[in-house]
Amino acid sequence: MNLQNAKGTQDVPPEEKALKNQLAESLQKIFSLYGFYPLETPLIERYETLAAKFAAGEASDALKEIFKLKDQGDRDLGLRFDLTVPLARYIAMNPNLKMPFKRYEIGPVFRDGPIKAGRMRQFWQCDFDIIGSSSMVADAECLALFENGFDQLGIDVIIKVNNRKLLNGILEQAGITDKETAIVTIDKLDKIGEKGVTEELKTRGLNSKQIKAILTLINPQTSLQTLKEEITAEEGIEGLKELSELFQYIEKMNLKKIKFEASLARGLAYYTGTVFEVYAKESKITSSLGSGGRWDNMIGNFMGGNRVIPAVGGSFGLVPIVETLKEKGKISSGNLTKAYVIPINTINEDKVLLRDMVSGTETLLSTKDIIRKLKEG
Amino acid sequence: MNLQNAKGTQDVPPEEKALKNQLAESLQKIFSLYGFYPLETPLIERYETLAAKFAAGEASDALKEIFKLKDQGDRDLGLRFDLTVPLARYIAMNPNLKMPFKRYEIGPVFRDGPIKAGRMRQFWQCDFDIIGSSSMVADAECLALFENGFDQLGIDVIIKVNNRKLLNGILEQAGITDKETAIVTIDKLDKIGEKGVTEELKTRGLNSKQIKAILTLINPQTSLQTLKEEITAEEGIEGLKELSELFQYIEKMNLKKIKFEASLARGLAYYTGTVFEVYAKESKITSSLGSGGRWDNMIGNFMGGNRVIPAVGGSFGLVPIVETLKEKGKISSGNLTKAYVIPINTINEDKVLLRDMVSGTETLLSTKDIIRKLKEG
Repeated sequence: MNLQNAKGTQDVPPEEKALKNQLAESLQKIFSLYGFYPLETPLIERYETLAAKFAAGEASDALKEIFKLKDQGDRDLGLRFDLTVPLARYIAMNPNLKMPFKRYEIGPVFRDGPIKAGRMRQFWQCDFDIIGSSSMVADAECLALFENGFDQLGIDVIIKVNNRKLLNGILEQAGITDKETAIVTIDKLDKIGEKGVTEELKTRGLNSKQIKAILTLINPQTSLQTLKEEITAEEGIEGLKELSELFQYIEKMNLKKIKFEASLARGLAYYTGTVFEVYAKESKITSSLGSGGRWDNMIGNFMGGNRVIPAVGGSFGLVPIVETLKEKGKISSGNLTKAYVIPINTINEDKVLLRDMVSGTETLLSTKDIIRKLKEG
Repeated sequence: MNLQNAKGTQDVPPEEKALKNQLAESLQKIFSLYGFYPLETPLIERYETLAAKFAAGEASDALKEIFKLKDQGDRDLGLRFDLTVPLARYIAMNPNLKMPFKRYEIGPVFRDGPIKAGRMRQFWQCDFDIIGSSSMVADAECLALFENGFDQLGIDVIIKVNNRKLLNGILEQAGITDKETAIVTIDKLDKIGEKGVTEELKTRGLNSKQIKAILTLINPQTSLQTLKEEITAEEGIEGLKELSELFQYIEKMNLKKIKFEASLARGLAYYTGTVFEVYAKESKITSSLGSGGRWDNMIGNFMGGNRVIPAVGGSFGLVPIVETLKEKGKISSGNLTKAYVIPINTINEDKVLLRDMVSGTETLLSTKDIIRKLKEG
């Protein structure tokens, strides 16, 4: 028999799993400190539930990546592809939850898509969200959690913040109708630069005047003050108001690592206000270590009613965080190096072998010694 | 849209999940103390890999309960139904692992079977195994882990031990050829009593003399000494030798809660030697809190070669353990009762709400107070 992993899945060997457990434990402590409760939702959902997110505005590429299955009763099921859909279902099914409801969930999700380095078909997500509050205090609290959380993990970060209403306002003033598509391109400013973004916006049918209007206001140098002078569109003004309020809380909470960045967009259609992204300072890891934002419409849409259920939250990027911690020497598989008791086939029947997992040194000890050691911890 | 859980799955709400996390953390410490390393295997396996266990002797009912799926490449996959198959695959795929290899895994498994109270289609298992040692020291170490582990969890237990070779020897002396079927019946002695077992063995074609021969030796009162005098079949003598050796280690390790019980069988075909089962003392929870045994043949069979890879290990029963801890007042959802910061929509923009999750008392605090509180932990 040909023994191998299912394509796109991998084992997490002991050294890696120990690091992952250690990180999960640190994150649990951080979440608990900020009053987020753990929630565990099933890995299997009804297919109809999973597909509903796409009706609610998620890019439809992901729909094709759902692993489908059926149970013995021929019901259509699927493996969850994120932690947001199960959360929305949970909120909808438990109308008596006291709001705001703050939960976190750490667990595997599945996407039957192309496999690249760092892109497997089963991977872990780590989400925290505040449901039921439209106050900017909630947004500020998410940012505080990120700032203090990364501090506790020992990673120096910069957290970039923007607002989707502001972006929409700028695009509206530039006369752009398909805002979502333009935002997906603007989100690449970091990666492909102003020239790349200009090219891509051209192919998307924007004229030079429009592109100039966008790039004058949307670039990493733009200050909030400049925007306050330039923005006239109603949605843009609303975005600026939210940002001002948010930065008041940020100041009151004495947060030091939050920075407004007009070019931050985040390519996901369901964000409705604040968006943020966390980057490590002085690191070779360039991908973000965390991100999030406000998504006020999805749960309501998802429930199919007219209720608006505001929500704001973020995700920790477990893979890049572990990479960064390793780079900075904050964690190593050295956590597994303690000497451990190993049973052996030996003629010394009252002896067992003690092996140091790093040096490989082995010592024979009597079982009594071992039990004493174990009892001492 | 009809929002509900997939049939046979359930959400673990915050209070329950906090308990589960707490238990998982305690178990991780116990495993680590005994030198077991964490391993994480994927939830999806190739269908061929999953099905191979049944060729290797597992009861075939479970084969029908595998959730099947396909990926975009039309590959046949399935959700894992236990943690043993992924472990066997991992051992087979990593021939350079230093033996003995001691791992634990805590995680969900899936069975598309009938749903009863306490029997869902997704549930968690918690396994620990020592691979690559045939020494009875390994078996004793598993028992020590159970005894000291339950001690640390605060549950007083009794651990019953037997040996499948001894059982086979007794059945051989009674002239019984279909030993596996007889063992499945004998395993019910606790539940259906001597009369029930007698009836069932009759319907399975055993005559009165055979049944008497079995039940004289296989009952909770039988001592090891009696068996030493009665057993003549070679396999039975081998089983007795293993048990004597095991109890020597148990004595040396100063374990106090291990008890030989000739009627303990464990209904699973893949056990080859030592078997054990953990029960709470003075509790209404009658199902076992843990169980395990030696399974020397499965990994070798699974690899399809002639190699014998000995293995011994156990499982903690998470659901009955949580029930027992609750019964004994050792854990409660009180762990969630600390007061937590909750953002609110309020005109007092520099105030946030502090809510006690049990009493429901709410207090307005300034954000500065909160941040100070958070920083103090």
